[in-house]
Amino acid sequence: EILEDLEAFFSPKVLAGKAVLVTAGPTYEAIDPVRGITNLSSGKMGFAVARAARLAGGDVTLIAGPVSLATPRGVKRVNVRSARDMLQTVQAYLPERGVFVATAAVADWRPANSADQKIKKDGSGQTPELSFVENPDILATVAQSAAAQKGELFCVGFAAESHDLLAHATAKRVRKQVPLLVGNIGPATFGQDDNALLLVDAHGARELPHTSKQALAVLLIQDIAQRLGGAQA
Amino acid sequence: EILEDLEAFFSPKVLAGKAVLVTAGPTYEAIDPVRGITNLSSGKMGFAVARAARLAGGDVTLIAGPVSLATPRGVKRVNVRSARDMLQTVQAYLPERGVFVATAAVADWRPANSADQKIKKDGSGQTPELSFVENPDILATVAQSAAAQKGELFCVGFAAESHDLLAHATAKRVRKQVPLLVGNIGPATFGQDDNALLLVDAHGARELPHTSKQALAVLLIQDIAQRLGGAQA
Repeated sequence: EILEDLEAFFSPKVLAGKAVLVTAGPTYEAIDPVRGITNLSSGKMGFAVARAARLAGGDVTLIAGPVSLATPRGVKRVNVRSARDMLQTVQAYLPERGVFVATAAVADWRPANSADQKIKKDGSGQTPELSFVENPDILATVAQSAAAQKGELFCVGFAAESHDLLAHATAKRVRKQVPLLVGNIGPATFGQDDNALLLVDAHGARELPHTSKQALAVLLIQDIAQRLGGAQA
Repeated sequence: EILEDLEAFFSPKVLAGKAVLVTAGPTYEAIDPVRGITNLSSGKMGFAVARAARLAGGDVTLIAGPVSLATPRGVKRVNVRSARDMLQTVQAYLPERGVFVATAAVADWRPANSADQKIKKDGSGQTPELSFVENPDILATVAQSAAAQKGELFCVGFAAESHDLLAHATAKRVRKQVPLLVGNIGPATFGQDDNALLLVDAHGARELPHTSKQALAVLLIQDIAQRLGGAQA
């Protein structure tokens, strides 16, 4: 704790006075009371971003899907499960925020019909078929809010891709209408402590070096603060 | 650690000389490199069983699906992901075991076709359809092994049910051909520290009181040891 206090004390307060909302982790979409669809996101990157934003003096709320990570010091955490839970909670905490960083790996789809009772094997060898409906797009929804459109809320998206990172991240930034999109090679980094990030904006792409997620989060927060023209302590 | 040592010292060694194999946690069945199907099993009950078996003097190996729980002291842990991984690993560790306790919430089904690349939303609003194939039945496979059939391996199954616990547990015991089936109300207890167990054997059912999973695991191991006519320290 003393080390954390020292680190907090010596960190440049580039987000002082900024209210920051971060989403992290996977979502979990129920198939029945026991089973569900999720993804391999560990939440580590998002928790690191929340921590770095707090160290930078931000007032940070972290909306987390089901992960078992310790909450960074000084960060308010709200746990959610499904994409719809997450959207609802994000919208509740969004007013007056200056920065929204969407690191969560939100499920694109959820089962069309979630069963109230556990689906049983009936011994016939028959297997269920699962249809899906599209989940709400949390990042795009927030990016289309009045605050974001007026430039009062700076939105940052994340893209985890298994291939063609630059092309996918560039396309995703335009599609989601956000000023900054952070790409990473998802399957290779999920659950790992290290990562490499690609920052894509309207002018092009910049690579952050392969290092710890904690260090990358600090670099990312510095980058965001510069884009805000934010208060330098 | 001193408390643990004391507890270990004073625990009756009812499984002394017994080699015990325990499975725990959910399995994770990949849909693509990022997404998958899992369930809400926390692994706590299985880890408690492994711990109790170790405290009772057993030589314990724990085959664990993806959970982030600390390995009980003195227990050998092997991490797996899918049902097929788990079966393969169980079979590798099965020879010479005297007790097999299958607490893992193994996925009944896995996606029929796991994609090599992340399935993308193409913007058309089209959603994927998912077909499933049946996973191997780990408990039934082990229960049909020569060692189990000859009475050299005592097999214990678990059933997590959302309703009609006694009926489902009784039917599952017969279907899996195991001498002891432990039922619990899954969805209500997944992730919780407490539970209540229903022990179902050929003669009927006995309820263990609602208490901590750690305490229930000790009671369950005592029950299993009695059924083995095992060495009392």
